[in-house]
Amino acid sequence: MPNKIKKIGVFTSGGDSPGMNAAIRSVVRSCAYYNIECIGIYRGYEGLMEGDFESMDARSVKGIINKGGTILKSARSTEFRTKEGRQKAYDQLNKAGIDALVAIGGDGTFTGALVFNEEFGFPVMGIPGTIDNDIVGTSHTLGFDTAQNTVVEAIDKIRDTASSHNRLFFIEVMGRDVGHIALNTGIAGGAEEILIPEEDLGLERLVESLKRSRKSGKSSSIVVVAEGDKIGKNIFELKDYVDENMEGYDVRVSVLGHMQRGGSPSCFDRVLASRMGVKAVDSLLEGKSNYMVGLINNKMQLTPLDNAIKGKTKINLELLRVSDIMST
Amino acid sequence: MPNKIKKIGVFTSGGDSPGMNAAIRSVVRSCAYYNIECIGIYRGYEGLMEGDFESMDARSVKGIINKGGTILKSARSTEFRTKEGRQKAYDQLNKAGIDALVAIGGDGTFTGALVFNEEFGFPVMGIPGTIDNDIVGTSHTLGFDTAQNTVVEAIDKIRDTASSHNRLFFIEVMGRDVGHIALNTGIAGGAEEILIPEEDLGLERLVESLKRSRKSGKSSSIVVVAEGDKIGKNIFELKDYVDENMEGYDVRVSVLGHMQRGGSPSCFDRVLASRMGVKAVDSLLEGKSNYMVGLINNKMQLTPLDNAIKGKTKINLELLRVSDIMST
Amino acid sequence: MPNKIKKIGVFTSGGDSPGMNAAIRSVVRSCAYYNIECIGIYRGYEGLMEGDFESMDARSVKGIINKGGTILKSARSTEFRTKEGRQKAYDQLNKAGIDALVAIGGDGTFTGALVFNEEFGFPVMGIPGTIDNDIVGTSHTLGFDTAQNTVVEAIDKIRDTASSHNRLFFIEVMGRDVGHIALNTGIAGGAEEILIPEEDLGLERLVESLKRSRKSGKSSSIVVVAEGDKIGKNIFELKDYVDENMEGYDVRVSVLGHMQRGGSPSCFDRVLASRMGVKAVDSLLEGKSNYMVGLINNKMQLTPLDNAIKGKTKINLELLRVSDIMST
Amino acid sequence: MPNKIKKIGVFTSGGDSPGMNAAIRSVVRSCAYYNIECIGIYRGYEGLMEGDFESMDARSVKGIINKGGTILKSARSTEFRTKEGRQKAYDQLNKAGIDALVAIGGDGTFTGALVFNEEFGFPVMGIPGTIDNDIVGTSHTLGFDTAQNTVVEAIDKIRDTASSHNRLFFIEVMGRDVGHIALNTGIAGGAEEILIPEEDLGLERLVESLKRSRKSGKSSSIVVVAEGDKIGKNIFELKDYVDENMEGYDVRVSVLGHMQRGGSPSCFDRVLASRMGVKAVDSLLEGKSNYMVGLINNKMQLTPLDNAIKGKTKINLELLRVSDIMST
Repeated sequence: MPNKIKKIGVFTSGGDSPGMNAAIRSVVRSCAYYNIECIGIYRGYEGLMEGDFESMDARSVKGIINKGGTILKSARSTEFRTKEGRQKAYDQLNKAGIDALVAIGGDGTFTGALVFNEEFGFPVMGIPGTIDNDIVGTSHTLGFDTAQNTVVEAIDKIRDTASSHNRLFFIEVMGRDVGHIALNTGIAGGAEEILIPEEDLGLERLVESLKRSRKSGKSSSIVVVAEGDKIGKNIFELKDYVDENMEGYDVRVSVLGHMQRGGSPSCFDRVLASRMGVKAVDSLLEGKSNYMVGLINNKMQLTPLDNAIKGKTKINLELLRVSDIMST
Repeated sequence: MPNKIKKIGVFTSGGDSPGMNAAIRSVVRSCAYYNIECIGIYRGYEGLMEGDFESMDARSVKGIINKGGTILKSARSTEFRTKEGRQKAYDQLNKAGIDALVAIGGDGTFTGALVFNEEFGFPVMGIPGTIDNDIVGTSHTLGFDTAQNTVVEAIDKIRDTASSHNRLFFIEVMGRDVGHIALNTGIAGGAEEILIPEEDLGLERLVESLKRSRKSGKSSSIVVVAEGDKIGKNIFELKDYVDENMEGYDVRVSVLGHMQRGGSPSCFDRVLASRMGVKAVDSLLEGKSNYMVGLINNKMQLTPLDNAIKGKTKINLELLRVSDIMST
Repeated sequence: MPNKIKKIGVFTSGGDSPGMNAAIRSVVRSCAYYNIECIGIYRGYEGLMEGDFESMDARSVKGIINKGGTILKSARSTEFRTKEGRQKAYDQLNKAGIDALVAIGGDGTFTGALVFNEEFGFPVMGIPGTIDNDIVGTSHTLGFDTAQNTVVEAIDKIRDTASSHNRLFFIEVMGRDVGHIALNTGIAGGAEEILIPEEDLGLERLVESLKRSRKSGKSSSIVVVAEGDKIGKNIFELKDYVDENMEGYDVRVSVLGHMQRGGSPSCFDRVLASRMGVKAVDSLLEGKSNYMVGLINNKMQLTPLDNAIKGKTKINLELLRVSDIMST
Repeated sequence: MPNKIKKIGVFTSGGDSPGMNAAIRSVVRSCAYYNIECIGIYRGYEGLMEGDFESMDARSVKGIINKGGTILKSARSTEFRTKEGRQKAYDQLNKAGIDALVAIGGDGTFTGALVFNEEFGFPVMGIPGTIDNDIVGTSHTLGFDTAQNTVVEAIDKIRDTASSHNRLFFIEVMGRDVGHIALNTGIAGGAEEILIPEEDLGLERLVESLKRSRKSGKSSSIVVVAEGDKIGKNIFELKDYVDENMEGYDVRVSVLGHMQRGGSPSCFDRVLASRMGVKAVDSLLEGKSNYMVGLINNKMQLTPLDNAIKGKTKINLELLRVSDIMST
């Protein structure tokens, strides 16, 4: 199967997510399996332009499948957005004899890869790594499953204290543009309400719903809020509004923050990462380029990179309905 | 939408799995949403025959979404396999005015439901709850995801001590007839070898592979073994064989056992359970019967119960290949 | 051993903490062991004044040892601070035939119990339940150990992403007046700096220390900050100061918040709670009153309640030194 | 404070335990703090005799405080029990210019260190690392706290399935000679019975107790059994005995095994390890030798090594009583 590709570079870029190390490991071991060289590129496009490279063999990635973060580090690069920056990157790749790239990251990462390919015809393959699950062309991005479990464990803990004190908690989870984490963890955490960017519930309806919930006998409540919820208030303003418009409530706020990006990946994310790494290397060796590997209907599939960066994945409307019914 | 169904009974049967409580909660709340009654039936078919029933409303299932096990208890029944037993069950249902049943369990449970429906024309709907993921008609059974995470966390711990001592560990995981847990957790746990019932690796190839692995520089090794692996030896016999046929190895065995069935369900299993409960109640109210709800291509779908109990789900051959490449 | 005490009431009050349920269980089972009645009092002093009581036997506390929060709920009461409030409480106790009280909570709870005892001569025994570990008379309060593990797991996750991006994180943990959680979790989380209320490091020394740390080759840093740190700035002001006074740093803030109060108690907290409940009931039956049970040199010991509420436990200076050496 | 000691060697030996890496890190950073050299010795006494050494600085131990196992690996050595073996070790130390040793392990490790010191007058300091908590001179050995939490989490999971099926589980935990793990986790896991090597309950009393427990309304039961329990039957024989002598019980066995030795250390173990490492280096630099550092009454204290290896720590009788009362 191997064509002329003899050396593959791999890097992580953008926000890190659990499973990135497992994906690196998979790319490296796939290369070892085909007896081709693998080069780890540090700090994403920054390291690519600087030639911050390291040769990796099967043993280099020992003991990382269960580690959060990325051993190759990540960074956001402004220089790579310039023609000069990309020229530097191309020169470094040529110098190192690298024939193809596997880019692990989100849509910013893929946009960079796409432009780079257009300019230099350099073979690139994308692996979707972001906790937000907002990439078209895969049902699950790397890290989404782990981040959901992290959030749900936190909600479980907060509910312990919420129900001991009959409190109302607003819990902010990640998701600036998409509500996947909020919607799923809200259902799993037994939230009474879920506020997501895709849907404008409205403050009054929120208050009505919370009052109804209290009347129905619930003494404590959890509202899960995505960072970018459409109501357009930040979570502390939400708290203030409820404080002013509802009596007898003890309202608290918890912003889960960056712990959502870390942690040992779940079984699902480790397996997904392993599959994606194999598929990425296989596809490059088959002469393909400009694709993202993804999970579609539980199978590894390729999606053209320009499709992958167009728009965001849609919220599952069935889940919205399930959420409504569950908070009966 | 509601047809003549006014009272739905729900029970869990067979081996328990994480997510069963979340499914019970979902059935109960879906009934509350439609203003129909819901009756919890204790201890599966045993309680069905004895009339061990309890009326449940939305508040009855508060605080159980994150609990392992099943608040309705489970049991295996021999009496229900007799015509007399099933007649008793039917009489109890009539007496209680129950119109339809949601059965949460595995293929044994569904077989019982199917026979019962054939004899009495009683509407039944199945929800697949088993950690083994061996039910046709759903990509994931309830509890499979959680059990995998439990196993992977245990493997991570064992690897700590394995690599400190340069040991070889055989780790037995559940899966008498199917290797889904073993295959996925083996990949996720970074196992050097995975023994599953679907594939006969052979003892000699196992030993060869382990020797090769040691030569390539690995100082410790993990072999994940499904209970029902095809080599036909139990895990202690495997250990003895390796002890006799490989020198310089310190071989240990760990049987993970029943902890795999318990634990707080993962986000995935809680969401899946919530979706399945809604779909089951919706389907009964639409006049459907004799189906199992399942996840197919990330959507809720119905599969006729007699299809669901035919055969077992197949191992994903892609995963076997990924496993081979990863242990490079 | 039993004297005239025939019925003991138990309640939780103030901020909840993991292990409170295990302590309730222990009080209830100890009463059952001695064949005396046990009454659960809901919502602390609020429920005491309202007579919100429930009789509890050994089976009532089944399955709660591993649950966070408190099944008896907690509350803060202003009315109990009045003479009238306490008279109401006394009347309710008399009406219910309760002879003695076990109060689980922090120093606010104990102050109430002490005043109540002074006025009515009612036998009271305290169990220290608070995550802050700030109560004199015990080396460990209930929930302290669990909260520390919760914090350390969160720090571990944050470090994954911090080191992937070479970031500096300020992480706020609980501890308004005392730095026990911050100091211990800072050491355990490998923090470069720890800011506690007991010690004024000063902003300049903080910045110097962080610069030195970066120079020594550390690419990411964690600073653990107690809510009430002495520098007198909140954590967002700290971030701003560092942003302004250090170049090339990507500084982030994470406030861990209320999840620190919840979660399944650790083995240590469950055993401690079990011991404390037994000791509290034993002591009441021996005719003692006005004491707090505590762990001193790994043994159950009594401390007069008025000593327990005087001042706060001191920071262990040895730990400060260990922290300094560890961040070498 | 530094005397003539210029180079300290550190190693781990015997069974590994969580916290060993944190202790290595602490020894290394303490050396860095005092500007003396630190040498990591691989595979315990084996590596000592072979000169398997590596120089370590503050950065070498980055990111290991939260890792289970030991980066220096561990081994059991028979050769070091011979005079020739120890001479080889001494020669290697001389050759490398190492002045003093920190030995992390259990009583076997300390016995070796003591003999070595007697023969060659070489300064040695011990750090107690074993999950069994059986070393005299410290209230807690490294890893004991973590192992207890691992066991309790497993028991919680098993209880989920036990109570769903009304089963009786025998759960075997580590502790060949001492019952500390069994006793503490039995209490924390809500076990009905706890079998430990220090106490011979007798099979009949066990059966009587289980019958009483069932009569009192408990539908499921957990019995925690230490490996070396005094009844003198292995756990499968126990099961058989109960199967034969009690009707209507569904009895299962779970052997938790080596996962108890691994896993990320708890906050407590990380702090303890950090303190012990500092104390060990401090003490060597003060010219002391032949001591073990330990936690006594929450303070770091030294115990002569020959005391530390004499006998085993005693079971806390108070805990036995608490256990009895809790299973009321």
